[in-house]
Amino acid sequence: MPELVAKRDVMALNEWLAGASTLDVADELARLSPSDRAITFRLLPKDRALEAFELLDPIHQQELLEGLRDSSVRQLFEDMDPDDRARLVDEMPAKVAKQLLAGLSPRERTLTSRLLGYPENSAGRVMSPEVVNLKANQTAGDALERLRRIGASAETIYALPVTDDARRLVGVLGLRDLVLADPATKVGDLMDTDVYKARVDQDQEEIARLMQEADLLALPIVDTEDRLVGIVTVDDAMQILEEEQTEDVARAGGAEPLEHPYLSVSVLGLARTRVVWLLVLIVAATLTVNVLHVFEATLDQVVALTLFIPLVIGSGGNAGSQSATTVTRALAVGELRTSDVALVVLREARVGVLLGAMLAALAFLPTMLFIDARMAAVVSLTLLAVCTLATLVGSLLPLLARRLGFDPAVMSAPFISTLVDATGLVVYFLIAKAVLGI
Amino acid sequence: MPELVAKRDVMALNEWLAGASTLDVADELARLSPSDRAITFRLLPKDRALEAFELLDPIHQQELLEGLRDSSVRQLFEDMDPDDRARLVDEMPAKVAKQLLAGLSPRERTLTSRLLGYPENSAGRVMSPEVVNLKANQTAGDALERLRRIGASAETIYALPVTDDARRLVGVLGLRDLVLADPATKVGDLMDTDVYKARVDQDQEEIARLMQEADLLALPIVDTEDRLVGIVTVDDAMQILEEEQTEDVARAGGAEPLEHPYLSVSVLGLARTRVVWLLVLIVAATLTVNVLHVFEATLDQVVALTLFIPLVIGSGGNAGSQSATTVTRALAVGELRTSDVALVVLREARVGVLLGAMLAALAFLPTMLFIDARMAAVVSLTLLAVCTLATLVGSLLPLLARRLGFDPAVMSAPFISTLVDATGLVVYFLIAKAVLGI
Repeated sequence: MPELVAKRDVMALNEWLAGASTLDVADELARLSPSDRAITFRLLPKDRALEAFELLDPIHQQELLEGLRDSSVRQLFEDMDPDDRARLVDEMPAKVAKQLLAGLSPRERTLTSRLLGYPENSAGRVMSPEVVNLKANQTAGDALERLRRIGASAETIYALPVTDDARRLVGVLGLRDLVLADPATKVGDLMDTDVYKARVDQDQEEIARLMQEADLLALPIVDTEDRLVGIVTVDDAMQILEEEQTEDVARAGGAEPLEHPYLSVSVLGLARTRVVWLLVLIVAATLTVNVLHVFEATLDQVVALTLFIPLVIGSGGNAGSQSATTVTRALAVGELRTSDVALVVLREARVGVLLGAMLAALAFLPTMLFIDARMAAVVSLTLLAVCTLATLVGSLLPLLARRLGFDPAVMSAPFISTLVDATGLVVYFLIAKAVLGI
Repeated sequence: MPELVAKRDVMALNEWLAGASTLDVADELARLSPSDRAITFRLLPKDRALEAFELLDPIHQQELLEGLRDSSVRQLFEDMDPDDRARLVDEMPAKVAKQLLAGLSPRERTLTSRLLGYPENSAGRVMSPEVVNLKANQTAGDALERLRRIGASAETIYALPVTDDARRLVGVLGLRDLVLADPATKVGDLMDTDVYKARVDQDQEEIARLMQEADLLALPIVDTEDRLVGIVTVDDAMQILEEEQTEDVARAGGAEPLEHPYLSVSVLGLARTRVVWLLVLIVAATLTVNVLHVFEATLDQVVALTLFIPLVIGSGGNAGSQSATTVTRALAVGELRTSDVALVVLREARVGVLLGAMLAALAFLPTMLFIDARMAAVVSLTLLAVCTLATLVGSLLPLLARRLGFDPAVMSAPFISTLVDATGLVVYFLIAKAVLGI
């Protein structure tokens, strides 16, 4: 398909667009250059264009708008859902955003400005303010009638919040239960009063995880006085979880998260996400230089000790990464709480000893044959000690980070490795001195 | 709350249960010991018990069933959704499963056995076979009437597949559009014919990602002849994505995924998920011993070279992890395809040079002051070379793994580090020989 665009083969391109699903169209659009993207986008019929536009990443939406005529831009912007529009505005230069917002119809402008007033990463930013609420004393039939009249503008009608006269949330009724009910039944008798809800200033990840764990299609959002202000839908929750996941993964690899899709980030931008941690880690690594400097005399006496330096500290780093990754994930999905420290430490210590003993056993014979029995004893004992130590450190640091309010994922594999490198060396030389009697 | 259970304070426990949300109850149940869990579970009223049971992990469901009376077990098992039941059966000893399946009503037994007939990780295993399908020539009013009659047993009615007389899928109608439509309109005129669907033998992760990207609440599942056999709902998709994510994260940390929640895995089980990779990596690390052995004479001549071994190979490992993590994630979320190799390599090579140059610049002056200018040149040049090399290797290996059909996440930080350690050492000594003229 990119070849068709490159060749400007409009006929073949039109044919391809007609046959492809909107998702495929959006996927291909995301991979085109901004100018090719605009050309291709203009070939789409109006309703499919909006659908494809909504599936694009905000950065691509923003690039696309720059390549379209003013009237198309205004129309697209007007037709978007308020929460998607707010996300796009975040991406734009302030001046462009202001101009576009000014061109909106008063209704849409008010809805969007309200969302933009909430702090970043709060529920308020992703919720849809267009929510249909029911009253407890309505009948199911009346409620359905009301839905037919005003439901079309709401982002979801699958979960219908029920409110009192002060717009306070008293229950939630699923559209399914409403449809299946006898039309004469009162909404108050049908609704679920054991209601999941979230505050408008709550963190997005928290509410997305709640929706996932409780299997919710939509979550009502209330203000500080428990009044209904909006609703978050499950597709937004999935997107939030994917973004959080991408952040966690990046941090676990020792880099800051990318703000845009990989191919939309420049080489300089990629380097920027990695350089800080890389510099921090190399500064931390100077500790190993110092440790080796201190034990230089020992190394001079037994040059063979040098041979096992990378192996010994590498194994420590690996055991530490494994443990850190496991505990970080268990924290992220809620299987562990910070109060479980003692439990986790006890388990991981035993795992560390077990793994260390296996590595020690594996290393003993080859080292004995390669060097001698005393060196083999040094390497094996060090592996046992370093592996246990690294597993402990790797499990403790994420718990500590969480308790201090950081993202546990910053306790990444590279970070743990660097940290246990210097300690591992000290352990190695102390054991060597003791066993070899230097 | 665990204290209340420990004290067997039934009154306080009942009070806590009445006030907590079902999700909180399930969370706490998951953290109790199997016997405490059974005791607490029996205090729940019947409908809440089923809800809480459905929120539990299959391993906890299975443990719980062991602690309950036969009649309660049969009832719970009968009331579960067929797809959840199939997941639970996977967890059970074959004998227990057979017995329980035999106790089911014929209808539920047929539904479950059909699901169990599909291969593991296929769409068939997670879909709900109880799906309400409409006909194109029905009116919206008739369709709603049909829903009222038979909709209660279906897992979802939010997306309604429309089929022809041979049960072949011809469209999908959202409940929302059905409710909002004029009752006299034909289903055929309301339905969406640009339909997303999946084959019953397709991989679960694929379909979950499709649902996420296309923002679907439910996805119709068809057999090889395009006949409707079931439907997958968004809550199952979210769960699949979370499980896949947990697998990827574990592999990225150099361990095999845990099969159960962290606290339900024994110390031996934890060690088992980590030992294989740890052993593979230590065997790979013997390469570094050999490299150092080869260059032992060089080390003897310039002992100062030893000082920088951990720093130089550590920096390479870190740069490689960063790059591998970034590319692996971009592949997982579909931002990159394996055909993008050339593009990625070009970008990452430039990022590597950039980062290497910065590390080199940072390291030069301190090394000059600490040792001398020639040693500083060796360290800086090595950092530049190793960083570039590691970034390249780190970006290439995940792409290669994917092309060969492996999970790119096995190209983990520990794996990349171990791999570039030996190469990094060779580069280091070659540069040292050239610069120092040994």
